[in-house]
Amino acid sequence: MELAPIAKRFSADRYATEITGIEIVEVRENYAKAKLAVEPKHMNAFGIIQGGVLFTLADFTFAVAINADKEEITVAIECHISFLKPVTGGTLYAESQRISESRSLKAYEVTITNERGDKVAKFHGRGFIRQAKPIQ
Amino acid sequence: MELAPIAKRFSADRYATEITGIEIVEVRENYAKAKLAVEPKHMNAFGIIQGGVLFTLADFTFAVAINADKEEITVAIECHISFLKPVTGGTLYAESQRISESRSLKAYEVTITNERGDKVAKFHGRGFIRQAKPIQ
Amino acid sequence: MELAPIAKRFSADRYATEITGIEIVEVRENYAKAKLAVEPKHMNAFGIIQGGVLFTLADFTFAVAINADKEEITVAIECHISFLKPVTGGTLYAESQRISESRSLKAYEVTITNERGDKVAKFHGRGFIRQAKPIQ
Amino acid sequence: MELAPIAKRFSADRYATEITGIEIVEVRENYAKAKLAVEPKHMNAFGIIQGGVLFTLADFTFAVAINADKEEITVAIECHISFLKPVTGGTLYAESQRISESRSLKAYEVTITNERGDKVAKFHGRGFIRQAKPIQ
Repeated sequence: MELAPIAKRFSADRYATEITGIEIVEVRENYAKAKLAVEPKHMNAFGIIQGGVLFTLADFTFAVAINADKEEITVAIECHISFLKPVTGGTLYAESQRISESRSLKAYEVTITNERGDKVAKFHGRGFIRQAKPIQ
Repeated sequence: MELAPIAKRFSADRYATEITGIEIVEVRENYAKAKLAVEPKHMNAFGIIQGGVLFTLADFTFAVAINADKEEITVAIECHISFLKPVTGGTLYAESQRISESRSLKAYEVTITNERGDKVAKFHGRGFIRQAKPIQ
Repeated sequence: MELAPIAKRFSADRYATEITGIEIVEVRENYAKAKLAVEPKHMNAFGIIQGGVLFTLADFTFAVAINADKEEITVAIECHISFLKPVTGGTLYAESQRISESRSLKAYEVTITNERGDKVAKFHGRGFIRQAKPIQ
Repeated sequence: MELAPIAKRFSADRYATEITGIEIVEVRENYAKAKLAVEPKHMNAFGIIQGGVLFTLADFTFAVAINADKEEITVAIECHISFLKPVTGGTLYAESQRISESRSLKAYEVTITNERGDKVAKFHGRGFIRQAKPIQ
């Protein structure tokens, strides 16, 4: 899949791209990779990354992997995230992979790693296919 | 508990407050309430609220409830969020309540509702007490 | 709702009722309560209750609440359980309540308490409506 | 690691082994595999496998992987299970692998497959190290 049109389409996800600063790196069938350069604006009151930043990174990567080449729209209905290691800076990478797919439901997992390859979070998302209409 | 000093302290959570726009509304023992006026910047590529916005709102409310009057710092280690109703605008309210607490672990739940009182998301968070040091 | 015909119907859940020993106590609209007398057969290798016993108790109570008076069958697709307090004996009670319901999906929560009313586990279940056929 | 002494030790998990019928197949460092021959006693009221059977299989495999060669005891505190495919018979296999480990917490995942290798459930478990005492 070509990255440019997908990146353009998903730039409409303003919260993930413009506000949070996440960038799509690679998209293949049922797979997506995104990255985020951690900045002071991503911190919580204790000086470590806000859990919502990691969730947004995972959820966006999941949304790209699940919807990139599809005619229908799949939305997350249940998500679980496990925070494995506190993050205070650097660059994060998220990779989303398909676990399972049925007629109405899809299960994907996202692993977030830091520059040294340490796992910092693991995300599981279940998506529900809402309609068979392409997005613009 | 007085709201002003707590709000000031948690304004250090830049991602939740400055970037996302969440505001603490009320804090009591083991309870916190926050609100968010939904704006176009919170949307995803399908024109509904980015799941990360709801997660950040829930996680922040959880963090305030769990840490507001405490000497130690409790960080989220496992979080589950259930998306119940798509949000496209309006004002959201999140309320966090304690479920259980032991020597090292705390369990809290957050319910997010819209202006009409409809539940739009339900969050469960487990926190681990990391250190017995006050935050500034 | 009358308890006897529902209990008879759900006795077909052999794993929950015959094997594990769970008993339905009360059923109302979108609500069910079940109980379990903890026995040595429910223990794990460390002498505390096997997590699977608590999960089965929660999942069964969820299934009863969600399906008791319905024409369609709703099956659990995503479940989260939080273990709050180790159990070594006594009687457990599980209560399931509806959080949300849409055309295809239902969200329920189950709280398990011991005889003293202490919460020992909290369960969140998302169910997907699979077919519009009554069960026998 | 030798299988026989570990299997003997975990036979004390009566609910998983004696009551449910789960058998340990392989144990390596931070890894365990178990199997279960599905029987009529494992069914729920709709004639498909009770979710608690799959949870018990996953949780037991997690407990074996996490505790097999350890001096301390790690107990599950938060578990998430995603049901991917209904099971009505056959033999199931569960494999548990380590995701992450810190001083007090461990994260493991379990994948359950059927005889054809189809994924039927995915489990994430977070364990908390409760004491530094060997089990008998």
